Amino acid sequence: MANKLTPRDQDYSKWYNEIVVQADLAENSAVRGCMVIKPYGYAIWEKMQAELDKMFKATGHENAYFPLFVPKSLFEAEEKNAEGFAKECAVVTHYRLKNDEARPGKLMVDPEAKLEEELVVRPTSEAVIWNTYKTWIQSYRDLPILINQWANVVRWEMRTRLFLRTAEFLWQEGHTAHATKQEALEETKLMNQVYTDFVENFMAIPVIQGTKTASERFAGAEETYCIEALMQDGKALQAGTSHFLGQNFAKAFDVKFATDTGKLDFVWATSWGVSTRLIGALIMTHSDDNGLVLPPNLAPYQVVIVPIYKGEDQQKEIAQVAQKIKSKLEEKNIRVKFDNRDKFKPGFKFHEYELKGVPLRIAIGPKDLEHERVEIARRDILTKSSVSQVEIVNYVEEQLQEMQQALFDKAKRFREENITKVETFAEFQSVIKEKGGFISAHWDGTQESEEAIKKTTKATIRCIPLDAKEEVGSCVYSGKPSKMRVLFAKAY
Amino acid sequence: MANKLTPRDQDYSKWYNEIVVQADLAENSAVRGCMVIKPYGYAIWEKMQAELDKMFKATGHENAYFPLFVPKSLFEAEEKNAEGFAKECAVVTHYRLKNDEARPGKLMVDPEAKLEEELVVRPTSEAVIWNTYKTWIQSYRDLPILINQWANVVRWEMRTRLFLRTAEFLWQEGHTAHATKQEALEETKLMNQVYTDFVENFMAIPVIQGTKTASERFAGAEETYCIEALMQDGKALQAGTSHFLGQNFAKAFDVKFATDTGKLDFVWATSWGVSTRLIGALIMTHSDDNGLVLPPNLAPYQVVIVPIYKGEDQQKEIAQVAQKIKSKLEEKNIRVKFDNRDKFKPGFKFHEYELKGVPLRIAIGPKDLEHERVEIARRDILTKSSVSQVEIVNYVEEQLQEMQQALFDKAKRFREENITKVETFAEFQSVIKEKGGFISAHWDGTQESEEAIKKTTKATIRCIPLDAKEEVGSCVYSGKPSKMRVLFAKAY
Repeated sequence: MANKLTPRDQDYSKWYNEIVVQADLAENSAVRGCMVIKPYGYAIWEKMQAELDKMFKATGHENAYFPLFVPKSLFEAEEKNAEGFAKECAVVTHYRLKNDEARPGKLMVDPEAKLEEELVVRPTSEAVIWNTYKTWIQSYRDLPILINQWANVVRWEMRTRLFLRTAEFLWQEGHTAHATKQEALEETKLMNQVYTDFVENFMAIPVIQGTKTASERFAGAEETYCIEALMQDGKALQAGTSHFLGQNFAKAFDVKFATDTGKLDFVWATSWGVSTRLIGALIMTHSDDNGLVLPPNLAPYQVVIVPIYKGEDQQKEIAQVAQKIKSKLEEKNIRVKFDNRDKFKPGFKFHEYELKGVPLRIAIGPKDLEHERVEIARRDILTKSSVSQVEIVNYVEEQLQEMQQALFDKAKRFREENITKVETFAEFQSVIKEKGGFISAHWDGTQESEEAIKKTTKATIRCIPLDAKEEVGSCVYSGKPSKMRVLFAKAY
Repeated sequence: MANKLTPRDQDYSKWYNEIVVQADLAENSAVRGCMVIKPYGYAIWEKMQAELDKMFKATGHENAYFPLFVPKSLFEAEEKNAEGFAKECAVVTHYRLKNDEARPGKLMVDPEAKLEEELVVRPTSEAVIWNTYKTWIQSYRDLPILINQWANVVRWEMRTRLFLRTAEFLWQEGHTAHATKQEALEETKLMNQVYTDFVENFMAIPVIQGTKTASERFAGAEETYCIEALMQDGKALQAGTSHFLGQNFAKAFDVKFATDTGKLDFVWATSWGVSTRLIGALIMTHSDDNGLVLPPNLAPYQVVIVPIYKGEDQQKEIAQVAQKIKSKLEEKNIRVKFDNRDKFKPGFKFHEYELKGVPLRIAIGPKDLEHERVEIARRDILTKSSVSQVEIVNYVEEQLQEMQQALFDKAKRFREENITKVETFAEFQSVIKEKGGFISAHWDGTQESEEAIKKTTKATIRCIPLDAKEEVGSCVYSGKPSKMRVLFAKAY
């Protein structure tokens, strides 16, 4: 089992990598930049998928599946999108291997099996999907189309980090088609709100909703809505995006429809996505120097029961009680693991489940048996309580709810303490350097100032918050007039 | 809406293609050999996934995710596996596109972004997974590893057909590691049994369990267990396979473990999978000249309610009753769609749901309202009954159960009628030509006879049935002695 983790204040980045590996979430693979998501990490992703999928369906969306490959000629059709992703495309050029006659037992790419047209491994699916929608849409009766896809995508990244930035990652991508601009805009905002609800209520991560500046927008979008979260090291993380694509893809793929008045018009589009990157956000928001801390709503198991015994008889006796408790909790839909493995000591198990962030740990020893009690430890605040066996179900339900809320509240408090209003660029630079977090500052709306600030401080405009109030001010960089504050931060 | 389907007896293959497209299950994409799985088809896949996933977890398996790409050097490590798949590998050779200066607005593969080592898009994941297991396994304490992955894979096929054979398809692949041969063999058989239970109970498709001959085995396996189903045109379809891989992959990737007696030994392996191909089997087993017929257990909606009305008042009145019925059915976990769209006529809707194979259709018109009855039509046997509104829930539950069983029974009867015992090769040839179906015949166990029969008749040995009885006989082709009958058929 693992050693102690590097403390966060010593090396946050090292702490993160250690937690991912030691808590058995994921690891690097033999393929450059691609990760293996291990069962425990994947179980968290499954919980996230299940909940998001329910929310997508409740808002009228259906799932479908589109090809992994995008022929180059389709990929380049929407020029801005193509330009934005061209530099990170894995490209399939051949469709066969053959024996390498110079090296027996080895294979080589068969030069005779060169594709006429290269295939891009999808970095995102707008192109292949809009080329399909073209044949699905003739009239306003065919609209809206509200489709989501769960898939893997590939973006060739030079510097990768487990979950946060990997060459291949898992995600969902929604792609919708609408008859009016208004409807498409509403869909864009609706899905950003769905992401907000999911991330706040299930992941217990508070987010700020906003829109991106032109330079931070999705390639091919007219407006990008986003949710931004703050990590414990004071860096921001973009947790989800929802794009209003205007008629850009409809024009690139010539997708027109007959309106109810019989005119022909281009279709309006949105796309929106979240990915396994969210697991990175989860880790960095809640975890501590002892390991992962999981919000109960997303924990693969919410309660683990560890027996403490000497000899077989005692083990059996405790196991009976443990099984009964497990059943009672499961009746309330609480996810419970009873770890009755004999080859590991209780202390080892305690350490393991602390590292893995299981919200509640129930320990049962011979004395507990005698008094009909158990010991319950809570992962986030590291408290231990002795609880009567008849009270367990109520206690556990209560604690799980409390913990879910406590994690959110703590993260929100941290974020509130780390949004700093600044008025001068000197202040800006000092806050970015000393304190980190979000900086709320006036900006003149020009790309020049945005670029200059980024160059000097590495901070980018994370978003223009949806709830920003109009306010007379002057740009923190140029001094030119500004009508509202935007949020800056260094970001993952 | 669609035209009438080509009848099966006129052109079975055309009928199949038409049903896939007209029932909105899938369509060909712009990418050679890759399909778009449309929402209705994907909803069936989701039902299948959910059920299989439950069964995998109930037998102790966990999900994980491994990379899409396999570096060529890993891919070629297990030579038989590599040889088996080399001819159908999509290969990534570059990781970047750039502007094509000769053609403004177009992109080209950047020759400077050539990968040092080519990446194979996984046709199956043994190589990348066993290269990972190597670092996970040191001792018998680390075993067994029981992992499943839901993923897309790519096998470059020259002749493709929607669901049955596509370049990219969706599947699950289980990959397990064991300390003993015995345990690995048991796992192989267990998963073949899980597939049998799933396909028979949920898909209502009867299957024959067996093992493959050496020449039909999975590349790299020591034994392949399979389930074989019979389609309505008399061709067989392999519905799932479970492979005992021996120590082949452990040896190729040097995966050894310390046994409980302290010796070092190679790990034993299995792998097993089913794919979206099963949807092809589903269609071809149950559907008729009117369209798809779905077993209730897998139908995205089991009941559709169609109102028949004139004018808004009547529509409202009927909608109220329909909603009540819908709620009552949903309380019993029955999946119901109420199609209250005003822009389509009832006849159009009847046709659509018949084509889409919805098990039960409830029609409610003004006269039904008056008599507090509804009309219920069953998709498989095309009966219509008038049912009192108070009886609906019981009636629907009963009919869904009956239909699930009836589909299985019918398919099983058809299969029993189409297993023909033959003793001579003349008989063999005539049965294959005239009747089709499975042929139960003696085989001498040699690859020569197997190959010769395939060449002459296009029939292959589908499996050596698990329940085959020892029986003295002589090979239908060579006349040499044989100890048991095997099953031949032409196959998808």
